[in-house]
Amino acid sequence: MNSKLFAGLAATISVAYSALAQSPDEIAATLAKRALTNSTAMSILTDLTTTIGPRLDGSEAEKRAAAWARTRFEKLGFDKVWVETFPLEHGWARGIEKAEIVSPSPQPLAVTALGGSVATPPDGITAPIVLFNTYDEMVAAPTGSFAGKIVVVTEAMKRSRDGSGYGKAYRIRGSGPAEAARRGAIAYMHRSLATDSHRLPHTGETDYTNGVPPIPAAALSVPDAEQLDRLYALGEPVRVKLVLTPRDLGPATSQNIIAELKGREKPDEIVLLGAHIDSWDLGTGANDDGAGVAIAMGAAKLIADLPQRPKRTIRVVLFGSEETGLYGGDFYAHTHTNELPRHVIAAEPDEGQGPVYAFQTGVANPDDPTLNRIRVALAPLGVAAGDNNSHGTSDIESSVSMGVPAATLEPDATDYFDIHHTADDTLDKIKPERINQSTAAYAVFAYLEAELDGDYRAKSTGQGK
Amino acid sequence: MNSKLFAGLAATISVAYSALAQSPDEIAATLAKRALTNSTAMSILTDLTTTIGPRLDGSEAEKRAAAWARTRFEKLGFDKVWVETFPLEHGWARGIEKAEIVSPSPQPLAVTALGGSVATPPDGITAPIVLFNTYDEMVAAPTGSFAGKIVVVTEAMKRSRDGSGYGKAYRIRGSGPAEAARRGAIAYMHRSLATDSHRLPHTGETDYTNGVPPIPAAALSVPDAEQLDRLYALGEPVRVKLVLTPRDLGPATSQNIIAELKGREKPDEIVLLGAHIDSWDLGTGANDDGAGVAIAMGAAKLIADLPQRPKRTIRVVLFGSEETGLYGGDFYAHTHTNELPRHVIAAEPDEGQGPVYAFQTGVANPDDPTLNRIRVALAPLGVAAGDNNSHGTSDIESSVSMGVPAATLEPDATDYFDIHHTADDTLDKIKPERINQSTAAYAVFAYLEAELDGDYRAKSTGQGK
Repeated sequence: MNSKLFAGLAATISVAYSALAQSPDEIAATLAKRALTNSTAMSILTDLTTTIGPRLDGSEAEKRAAAWARTRFEKLGFDKVWVETFPLEHGWARGIEKAEIVSPSPQPLAVTALGGSVATPPDGITAPIVLFNTYDEMVAAPTGSFAGKIVVVTEAMKRSRDGSGYGKAYRIRGSGPAEAARRGAIAYMHRSLATDSHRLPHTGETDYTNGVPPIPAAALSVPDAEQLDRLYALGEPVRVKLVLTPRDLGPATSQNIIAELKGREKPDEIVLLGAHIDSWDLGTGANDDGAGVAIAMGAAKLIADLPQRPKRTIRVVLFGSEETGLYGGDFYAHTHTNELPRHVIAAEPDEGQGPVYAFQTGVANPDDPTLNRIRVALAPLGVAAGDNNSHGTSDIESSVSMGVPAATLEPDATDYFDIHHTADDTLDKIKPERINQSTAAYAVFAYLEAELDGDYRAKSTGQGK
Repeated sequence: MNSKLFAGLAATISVAYSALAQSPDEIAATLAKRALTNSTAMSILTDLTTTIGPRLDGSEAEKRAAAWARTRFEKLGFDKVWVETFPLEHGWARGIEKAEIVSPSPQPLAVTALGGSVATPPDGITAPIVLFNTYDEMVAAPTGSFAGKIVVVTEAMKRSRDGSGYGKAYRIRGSGPAEAARRGAIAYMHRSLATDSHRLPHTGETDYTNGVPPIPAAALSVPDAEQLDRLYALGEPVRVKLVLTPRDLGPATSQNIIAELKGREKPDEIVLLGAHIDSWDLGTGANDDGAGVAIAMGAAKLIADLPQRPKRTIRVVLFGSEETGLYGGDFYAHTHTNELPRHVIAAEPDEGQGPVYAFQTGVANPDDPTLNRIRVALAPLGVAAGDNNSHGTSDIESSVSMGVPAATLEPDATDYFDIHHTADDTLDKIKPERINQSTAAYAVFAYLEAELDGDYRAKSTGQGK
C-alpha cells in the first residue's frame, strides 16, 4: 500500500467514522448547513427550465422532461430509477388567444385560454359583456339571463403568506365557465387568480360540468380586468371580441418518474417526496413546479451523498400531468395501493421556492418523538411548528386520502401568485437562497423520517405497518 | 341687493383681493399645495387611458385621442384650443409577432416588432442565431460574417434615477438592425432596453440606414434574452424561428393639439408646456406619455382656476407622432418659426409620473432672478436645483435647437424603464401622489415663468425679444 492510497483510505474511513459517530440530529444539522450553500438544486432548476422549458402535460415536451429527469436521477447516483407511463383521455394545445374591446373604446385585451377550454369559432365571438365584480353576484343571476352575452367576473384574489387566497378564489376559474354557461352565456372571462398587476394573464384548468354546454373561457390580466371595470362603470354597452383556438388532441400519455435511495435496514418502508414535472405552457414552470423538482431532487441528493443510506427508503416521485387534473398523483395512488401502507409519510413542495416557514403534519399522533426531533431540527432554518391539518399537497393528496400520513413544509407564498401559471414563471424569478432554505428543510425532514422510527397511523385503522 | 347676493359678491371680491394681495411666490406656493391634493391630473389620465387606450401615431386611435384632448381642454376652460394636422410619410401597424427556439430546446420566445420593422415572410424566418453579449462585439464583426444568420444582442441596460441608461443603450435598438444587416444578417433581435424582468418585450422605433437592406427586427423580453444567453452558452447551435407581419400603411396624418391661457399683459410671450398624445400600441401609454399629458394639462388647469390669468400666455401643446420620430415636435418648430423668438421657455414631462427631483435649465443666464425664485418655490416639493445642461425633452428639442430656452423638471425615472414601451404601461402603474407632485412642480414653474419677467436668451444671438 503506497502512502497516497493509504492517505485516501484513511480519509474515507475518517469520514465514515465521523458520520457513524454523529447522531441523526447532528447529521440533519449538517445536511441543513450543506443545503444552504449547495448549488445542486439551482443547477437542476436552471437545467430543467433552460433545456426543456415549458412542459405541458401529455406533450412531447413533458416526455423530454421525463427523459431529462431519468438521466439526471441516474447521474445523481440514485439506487433505482424508473418511469411509469399512464394514459390521458385528452391532450390539449393552446392556440391563438386574442381579445379586444370593440366598442365603445377599441383596444386589445390581454387574455389566455383556460386549460381545457373549448375554442371559439375561428373568427371569434363578438358580443356585449355583462360584468360582475364578484362571483356571488354572477351566480345569483337567473337561468337564461346571460343569453347572447360574454360574462366577465372581476373579483380580486387576496395576497397572503399561506396562499389561501387562491383556494378561496378557485371557483371563479374552476366553476365560473360552467355556471355562466348554465345561465346562457356564450363565453366567459375572469380576472386572473393573481396578486400581480402585469399584462400577463394567469391560465389554469377549468372544470366543465356534465349537462352544461362548454363555452370558451379565458383569464384576463389584472390590468385588463380593471380596465373593463372602469369602462363598464361608465354605463355604455361594452362589446368584446374573443378569439380562442385551443385544440383537444385526444388520447395522450403522461408519466411519473420515480427514483429511490434504498433504505439500508428497512428498504420496504418509504418516505415519499413528490413534485410535478409538468408545467403550464406559458412560462418555463420555474416556480410551478420546477422549484419543487429542484428541492425534492436536491434534498435527496444531499442525503445520497452521506456515507451511508438512511434506514428507510427515500422515494422521489416526479409526477406527470398535475396541472390539468392531478392525473399523475391519482395514477400513483391507484397503482401503488399495495405499497401505500408502507409509506411512512409523504410531502411535496408545490407552492414555489419558499422559504419554508412552518412544518405542518397530517398524522394520527402529532406528538410522535420523531416529529418533535424534526421540529427541533427545522427551527434553526426559521421553520416553526405548524398545525396537524395537512392533507398533503396536490399530487400526494390521492395517496393521503388513501391513508398515507402527510406533512406540509409550508412555503412563503406571498409572491407566488404574482407569476403562477403565467408566461412570467421563469428562472429569473428564483432566488438561490430561497430554494436552498427549502432544500435544507426537505433534507432535514426526509433524512430524519428515513433514519428514525416515526409511525403515524392510528393503529385502529388497520392501515399501519 | 339682497343679502345672499351681497355675501356671494363679497366672497368673490375677497378671493380676488386676496389673490391680488398675494405675491407671485405666494400664489405659486398655493398652486403647489392645491396640486398635491387635486384630482384633475389623475382624472385626465384615467379618462385618456380608459376611453381611448393605446394611440399609435397616425392611427384612428390617435385621432380619437386628439378629439378627446380638444374637448377636454375646452371643458377645462382654456381660452383658445386648436388642432394642427400634419402629414406622415408612413403609418405602420403591428401584425403577428411570434418567435420560438426550434432547436435544441423547442420553446416560445416573447418578442415584439420594433417600430417601423419590415415583415418576415408570412411563414417566418428560421435560421441559426449568432449571439453577442454586447453591442460593441456585434459591430466588431466583419462585413458579411452574419450571412444567413439571425443576430441577437443581449446587452443589458442599466437602471438609474435619471434614466441615462436608456440613452446609452439606445443604439442597440436604434442602430442594431442596420448594423447587423450591413454585415449580412437576415433578422435582428435584441434584449429589450429595459430594467424589468417580465415576459413583456419593450418596443420602440428603429432607424434603418439608407443603402442597407432593412431586415425584420424585434425586441426580446429580458427573461427571454437571458434564456438565449444560457442556451447559447451551452455550445450547441441554436435555431430560432421569427414571424413578424407588420405593415407599412403608407401616407397618414397626425396632429398637435394646442391650448392657451392667454396672458393678461403680454399675450404674445409664450411659456410652453409640451407632452405627447400618441403612445406605443402595446399598452395604454399611461406613463408614456399619458402622465405628461395629465401633468401639463393639470398644471395649466390649476393656473386657469386662479382669479386672473398670469401676464404671459401659457401654451400647452400635446404633440402627435412623437414615438416614431418626433414628427409633431418638428412640425411645430418649423411652422411656428416666427413665434419661436417669443417663446420664453419650454418644458415637457415625458419620462413618466415623477416625482420631479431636480430643476435643470438650458438658458443663457442661469442666474436670472426668476429662475432663482422658481428654485426657491420648487424646494418645498423636494426639487433640487439642477445644472444648466437641459436641451429640452423629446418634442420640444426641435424648438430648443432653434433657440427656445429650455427647462427640464427631471423626474425620478428609476422604475420608468420597467414598463416603458410595453403592454404593461397601464394606469395601475400610476401613483396619484407621484403625478400630483409632478403637477405641482409644473404649475409652480409655468405660473412663475408666466407671471415674472424671465428672459433667457443671450442678447448677442439676436434671438431675444
